[in-house]
Amino acid sequence: MGIVLGEDQYGKAETRVVRVYRDSDRHEIRDLNVSTALRGDFDAAYLTGDQAKVLPTDSQKNTCFAYAKERGVGEIEDYALALASHFTDDISSVTRARVDVDEYRWERVAVDDVGHAHTFVRVGHEIRSAAVVIDTGGSVKAQWVVSGVRDLVVLKSTGSQFTGFLRDHYTTLPEASDRILATSLTARWRYAGTAVRWGEAFAQVRQILLERFAVTYSRALQQTLWEMGSAVLAARDDIAEIRLSAPNKHHFLVDLSPFGLDNPGEVFHADDRPYGLIQCAVAREDAPDAGLAWDAPASFA
Amino acid sequence: MGIVLGEDQYGKAETRVVRVYRDSDRHEIRDLNVSTALRGDFDAAYLTGDQAKVLPTDSQKNTCFAYAKERGVGEIEDYALALASHFTDDISSVTRARVDVDEYRWERVAVDDVGHAHTFVRVGHEIRSAAVVIDTGGSVKAQWVVSGVRDLVVLKSTGSQFTGFLRDHYTTLPEASDRILATSLTARWRYAGTAVRWGEAFAQVRQILLERFAVTYSRALQQTLWEMGSAVLAARDDIAEIRLSAPNKHHFLVDLSPFGLDNPGEVFHADDRPYGLIQCAVAREDAPDAGLAWDAPASFA
Amino acid sequence: MGIVLGEDQYGKAETRVVRVYRDSDRHEIRDLNVSTALRGDFDAAYLTGDQAKVLPTDSQKNTCFAYAKERGVGEIEDYALALASHFTDDISSVTRARVDVDEYRWERVAVDDVGHAHTFVRVGHEIRSAAVVIDTGGSVKAQWVVSGVRDLVVLKSTGSQFTGFLRDHYTTLPEASDRILATSLTARWRYAGTAVRWGEAFAQVRQILLERFAVTYSRALQQTLWEMGSAVLAARDDIAEIRLSAPNKHHFLVDLSPFGLDNPGEVFHADDRPYGLIQCAVAREDAPDAGLAWDAPASFA
Amino acid sequence: MGIVLGEDQYGKAETRVVRVYRDSDRHEIRDLNVSTALRGDFDAAYLTGDQAKVLPTDSQKNTCFAYAKERGVGEIEDYALALASHFTDDISSVTRARVDVDEYRWERVAVDDVGHAHTFVRVGHEIRSAAVVIDTGGSVKAQWVVSGVRDLVVLKSTGSQFTGFLRDHYTTLPEASDRILATSLTARWRYAGTAVRWGEAFAQVRQILLERFAVTYSRALQQTLWEMGSAVLAARDDIAEIRLSAPNKHHFLVDLSPFGLDNPGEVFHADDRPYGLIQCAVAREDAPDAGLAWDAPASFA
Repeated sequence: MGIVLGEDQYGKAETRVVRVYRDSDRHEIRDLNVSTALRGDFDAAYLTGDQAKVLPTDSQKNTCFAYAKERGVGEIEDYALALASHFTDDISSVTRARVDVDEYRWERVAVDDVGHAHTFVRVGHEIRSAAVVIDTGGSVKAQWVVSGVRDLVVLKSTGSQFTGFLRDHYTTLPEASDRILATSLTARWRYAGTAVRWGEAFAQVRQILLERFAVTYSRALQQTLWEMGSAVLAARDDIAEIRLSAPNKHHFLVDLSPFGLDNPGEVFHADDRPYGLIQCAVAREDAPDAGLAWDAPASFA
Repeated sequence: MGIVLGEDQYGKAETRVVRVYRDSDRHEIRDLNVSTALRGDFDAAYLTGDQAKVLPTDSQKNTCFAYAKERGVGEIEDYALALASHFTDDISSVTRARVDVDEYRWERVAVDDVGHAHTFVRVGHEIRSAAVVIDTGGSVKAQWVVSGVRDLVVLKSTGSQFTGFLRDHYTTLPEASDRILATSLTARWRYAGTAVRWGEAFAQVRQILLERFAVTYSRALQQTLWEMGSAVLAARDDIAEIRLSAPNKHHFLVDLSPFGLDNPGEVFHADDRPYGLIQCAVAREDAPDAGLAWDAPASFA
Repeated sequence: MGIVLGEDQYGKAETRVVRVYRDSDRHEIRDLNVSTALRGDFDAAYLTGDQAKVLPTDSQKNTCFAYAKERGVGEIEDYALALASHFTDDISSVTRARVDVDEYRWERVAVDDVGHAHTFVRVGHEIRSAAVVIDTGGSVKAQWVVSGVRDLVVLKSTGSQFTGFLRDHYTTLPEASDRILATSLTARWRYAGTAVRWGEAFAQVRQILLERFAVTYSRALQQTLWEMGSAVLAARDDIAEIRLSAPNKHHFLVDLSPFGLDNPGEVFHADDRPYGLIQCAVAREDAPDAGLAWDAPASFA
Repeated sequence: MGIVLGEDQYGKAETRVVRVYRDSDRHEIRDLNVSTALRGDFDAAYLTGDQAKVLPTDSQKNTCFAYAKERGVGEIEDYALALASHFTDDISSVTRARVDVDEYRWERVAVDDVGHAHTFVRVGHEIRSAAVVIDTGGSVKAQWVVSGVRDLVVLKSTGSQFTGFLRDHYTTLPEASDRILATSLTARWRYAGTAVRWGEAFAQVRQILLERFAVTYSRALQQTLWEMGSAVLAARDDIAEIRLSAPNKHHFLVDLSPFGLDNPGEVFHADDRPYGLIQCAVAREDAPDAGLAWDAPASFA
């Protein structure tokens, strides 16, 4: 009938791996959410139901757990690279592997101002992420590492305006010379290579994003994102591109005049929906091709 | 420094539009969640904060509401096409518009077995969706329509096996000759054109997906998805491609033997995470190029 | 120090039990979320860590699964009664057991207009619930059954007003002579006894709630709830009391006049938060005492 | 028919109030979620739809915003007391008011190691809460203040066992001499009066809860909760009672032996459902009667 299988991938999503390091009485913990996705010579599984080349998703899950012991989780980028390499190198039917890892932050509970040896409290609203793609379908084994942060919720109570915008037939918005600017930032950055101290890089990027958000006088969320993204690239040569997605979490000034009260930027209603959504990429002009770095499962459906 | 703005888009997400038709005493309601995303000549907004060409997301929201009155919402594909055309045709800085619409299902409340004139109850777990992209950046105005359904939760209590799969060092999964197969399906299909009776097409595709899931003896979720997708293309010439994303919602047989009970496929534990995730595209060999049809906001971050 | 243990309970929450009946080729499925909570002679577990009288929550989970096989799940009220009786009768340290069961609705997938023998699709937005409490701490074994429905989302597009209300210094709301009335209803009703055909009763109560919501001209959500609740009690002598909790899901008429459009009750913005929340009980004057029927885990924290 | 209205309450839920203090260039922000619930002489609203004594929930929302300006939000307990007093004192039909306030934590963004004047980042996973009930239905105006914290996620990687428990026919759980203990704590404590420095008290209680969780060798989550709760009462005379609700978030040791690996407490699977749920109250023997302190909206439905 001229109907053919297009792209496909399969894997195990959201394996919740917790790794405890107990090399001394002072334990360390790492708390991860791991997803794997494989591509390769899997047409038969679709077309005839033949599973002979299909590594079960259950085995992929087992591998995530076993590698947490065998290799350790180290930085999540290294852990994802090890897993992706394993799938492409050791499973003959696999030509491409993608591994996504989210990491949740914990801190030691302070007891008499000293961090406890084996008790931890979840901190932070945001999640650190890494996404690795390794592809062996070409002449050379290629790999891409994207690190990121999401749910990084920030707010400026002043230092933001929105004026001089285009007005059409449907525009009623008044200009705002002083407003709250708030967002729940998702940032993901693509490295040019893999010789990176991932943890240091993450901390530095996160800090730059926060600082630029703070010190930039915002003429629009677009401009703020550009300032944030370009500062990251300016600071780190090893990052080729950064993509930012920022919902504009609207805070509406409440009209208190019916109650005889003025409201000079003091009382706001934090609204849920709708929200503005600003998304942009900032890249190095001479950046290597993105290849499959951004090849997200989401593009499927 | 050689740092440049890459792709970008902005818009208003999740405007919750409810439209009541009260042409007679027998009202109709439509309940939508609408998101718009625009691209075009917006570099200045990022690079200098100049908003002169930026149509506020608030105006986009207003347009969603106004069009629900002026044009009506009709089928959500038509409503999305009208909105996207407006943005590209009437706003000079816009060269590409994407409009996503989700629709929630309501039925009339039955009173004495007759549907009530103006009272409705939410039904169905699943959501109907439409995504339209219109691009005027090329020599001709191009447009793409993708319709879909998501959160369509289905389950087979038998007629599913998983055997003959690849076993590696990390494989412990036993073969299953009879198991529960359950998924929460997301399906999205791309039309070859726009001369389509959208509502009829949606109902037919949904029914085919359900029937194929039901009658296919499953040798793997992969094969079931292929059967579902190819049946849709076989039935409708106007659909060029369908993409399916299916979490394998695992139901584990509970071991009741410690209690002196056998369990021949009767008692299961429905697990949350991890889950298998199978994703594939099924396309017509002679399908027109996908162009920007799948150009999702998610690719940004 | 004069510090004492107050009330306490413990159990296993959200055990996801799926039961398949395969007595014939035409399977039946039941999909449940079960929570157990026990009270009794458990002070030592708190005060000294002595677990000698503590039935592990893991054993409670096992019992939920085993009973699904041994007794079957039948109507969820019967299943909950059987479990609660088991805990109070068979575990000597237990003097009170509470069992909560939620049930998710599935329908057969239609193939050529006939319901398929073993393929099902999740339907309905709402959840059926049952809560049973059995107490053996008094002179007689006492038991209470509360059935319910939640997430029953209903909407009237007319037939609702809100006028003549109290106005204070902070009141700005205009009167509304015709508005949308929408809610996501939670209803729970307490039976006077246990000689009830639970399934029939549930269907009848659900239908009365829907019909009364439909046919009542609403002068306020309060009055609508009263009409709904009192109609249930009028129809069924075996129900002693019903409690209703109804968020007023606001739909705001959009001002389209800036665009030269009128809006006679046609285009609305469905808002998320804040929402009104109306809660009331309707009871039979001669109802037996509620006892521990409403003794919810939530009261603890 | 002998059908009567039972208890009822109504109000506005989840008003999202953000208050900016801009007395100097160094702004402060407070981010609240406020719910109000009123009882009183409202039978007519239910029985006849007469709204003459009903203060609209919209006015209650307005009051939350106006008070944030007029009175400021101060400590959330004070803000809730002010609102509840207003409703009972100033609205003649109201005899009881309950006000619930959740507060989200923000910290200043550090720029060159100095907290920024007007830029903030959401921190912490947990939410601080206050619930105030004021009742004027009796001979004297009575008031109750309950403060709390929820979603306080803590984990011990050792120092926890579960042994010596009751075994019944359905028990398969092995004893555990060293396990992970993790929970997402909800704690709420009732004050004996209102002459309290709320902020200091909150910080102290939170710290005691964390420290006791850390330093207690756990023979069961029950015993740990008792240690936490009784330590709070021992430290603060002004707290009459504390209630704790703690899901036992199970971390299962992964069996790595099929892969030739041992797993001495290093690799765990963090499971979602089911979970144990342990709930208890710890009270001062001479505590004043709880009255309406725990009178939660949840008891309605």
